Amino acid sequence: MSLDLKNGNINMGHGSGGRAMAQLIEGLFLKYFDNALLRQGNDQASFDVDAGRMVMSTDNHVITPLFFPGGDIGSLSVHGTLNDIAMSGAKPLYLSAGFILEEGLALAELERIVISMAGAAQQANVKIICGDTKVVEKGKGDGVYINTTGVGVVPKGINISGDLARPGDAILISGTIGDHGISVLSKRENLEFETTIKSDSAALHELVAEMIKVVPQLHCLRDPTRGGLATSLNELAKQSGVGMQINEAGIPIQTEVNAACELLGLDPLYIANEGKLIAICAAEDSEPLLSVMQNHPLGHNAAIIGAVMEDKDQLVQMQTSFGGQRLLDWLMADPLPRIC
Amino acid sequence: MSLDLKNGNINMGHGSGGRAMAQLIEGLFLKYFDNALLRQGNDQASFDVDAGRMVMSTDNHVITPLFFPGGDIGSLSVHGTLNDIAMSGAKPLYLSAGFILEEGLALAELERIVISMAGAAQQANVKIICGDTKVVEKGKGDGVYINTTGVGVVPKGINISGDLARPGDAILISGTIGDHGISVLSKRENLEFETTIKSDSAALHELVAEMIKVVPQLHCLRDPTRGGLATSLNELAKQSGVGMQINEAGIPIQTEVNAACELLGLDPLYIANEGKLIAICAAEDSEPLLSVMQNHPLGHNAAIIGAVMEDKDQLVQMQTSFGGQRLLDWLMADPLPRIC
Repeated sequence: MSLDLKNGNINMGHGSGGRAMAQLIEGLFLKYFDNALLRQGNDQASFDVDAGRMVMSTDNHVITPLFFPGGDIGSLSVHGTLNDIAMSGAKPLYLSAGFILEEGLALAELERIVISMAGAAQQANVKIICGDTKVVEKGKGDGVYINTTGVGVVPKGINISGDLARPGDAILISGTIGDHGISVLSKRENLEFETTIKSDSAALHELVAEMIKVVPQLHCLRDPTRGGLATSLNELAKQSGVGMQINEAGIPIQTEVNAACELLGLDPLYIANEGKLIAICAAEDSEPLLSVMQNHPLGHNAAIIGAVMEDKDQLVQMQTSFGGQRLLDWLMADPLPRIC
Repeated sequence: MSLDLKNGNINMGHGSGGRAMAQLIEGLFLKYFDNALLRQGNDQASFDVDAGRMVMSTDNHVITPLFFPGGDIGSLSVHGTLNDIAMSGAKPLYLSAGFILEEGLALAELERIVISMAGAAQQANVKIICGDTKVVEKGKGDGVYINTTGVGVVPKGINISGDLARPGDAILISGTIGDHGISVLSKRENLEFETTIKSDSAALHELVAEMIKVVPQLHCLRDPTRGGLATSLNELAKQSGVGMQINEAGIPIQTEVNAACELLGLDPLYIANEGKLIAICAAEDSEPLLSVMQNHPLGHNAAIIGAVMEDKDQLVQMQTSFGGQRLLDWLMADPLPRIC
């Protein structure tokens, strides 16, 4: 019984720890993720580190559908965790990959996802060095769930954290918001609509590396995923104990994302992104930072969108394009479950 | 709307990235996992390391039922990953915790699991420093799945790996086999039977630390989980390119586990363990190693069960208690899905 990647399906034996699982690992995961650390073949991977500060981050990915314009659960699962690592200024080094597979999943579909993961990891220059595979009965999963956990190294002298925003700081966004959420939504069974919007799913650590070269004293970075820009700003305001004043006219949004949001009754400020970051820095650093961001392919639509204020209530307020003031609260009811 | 741990249930909003998720994190995960690194509140946790060798390991836990004699998915998810880390001789440092929750899960049940995880981590002296929570619709999960990923530090001079078994080496097991699998099986809906067998789920790194104090030149360690002792021995034989000769009479098994296996038509050699390890060392080190194992609470039933042989076919053979020879192959058909 060999692994039939073309016509085969996942069965409970692929999670058994026995021969079928060994075949799946050898014929699929090792084949595409191949690297010396993974090939060690132990239940853990070992690597040498220099003394210094490391970071660790974890993300489960349960997105539906598994494939969407601009990406799939495989590439997303690499980008998602790399970005959480990068938001500390760290250089990501290694990823683990944990799969929960639903009995009946087509091996061809899983192969497509694994190839996409491998490509995203290679492009980002990180290695997937250990993994785990479990199988659950049909109806106890939804095709595939992927956990990735990553570690990275923070360059000396860099100290970026969500609690470092100070009144007077400038708030920047690296590009258009809402692309990921709208692209995924356009493929949902009950909603399918025509759009040219693609997910912005991308690994941001190289953009971050450029940014901290120019502004090593950067205060905060955060990628506005679930809950969107508005929720991430609220998280940062709470963590730093400050308020924020945002200028709606400054927020980059694609016309088509705006149109889709109007059609669906959604607010783009609360829609998930997977290749964007919020940066907060001292006002005097904002122009050089903006310039380096705009010179990077993943930041060419970057903009300064507001400023940090003193506010004991830690409110995020927005001057609307019509000149009014609007309170941007945390996301309450979730219009878009399973977006990542 | 606050978090009602007593009567509440998980809803899709708890995975939204918004206010409900923030309440779940604050009121449940931070409450029980509390530590300074987790409290950083960023999307990644940072920590300082010395120069040296580190290891990383990941495990998804999909065990059913969630609670079983001797443990639950919470404690198991801590022990499982710590043990994979420990099998390199490393001291585990930090864990991540990724939850996939099914809509409708009782918060009281989740709290019980989180308390158990926190207790297991504290007892093992490791910290859960970052996490992630996703929610899937009712019928797309099975209560809760937990990924844990860990990192640890390998002491200087220690080099333990599955490819280091050499002909003539001794093979040891740290205690009775099959306890975990049989205890879980006794609680399966369609099988429930009366037994006093408890899962052996436990963190083995302190036992390992004692072992490498006495025999730092230890060759291999492996915890025989899915697929049981027989499958793990085959993995090691393949990795090292050797054969093995096992003595059935030397393998510690509880009478009740043997009885349950006979009743159910199962072979204890293929039943999962969660608190046992296989050790392989040079013959001359086997007696001192056995002695230090037997002096530790998690190794008091340790035994020498066989020897490594030259064998280009990498076969694991066993002299049965009746004096015959039996080939121990890899696990083929899995009698016990979702055992961890």
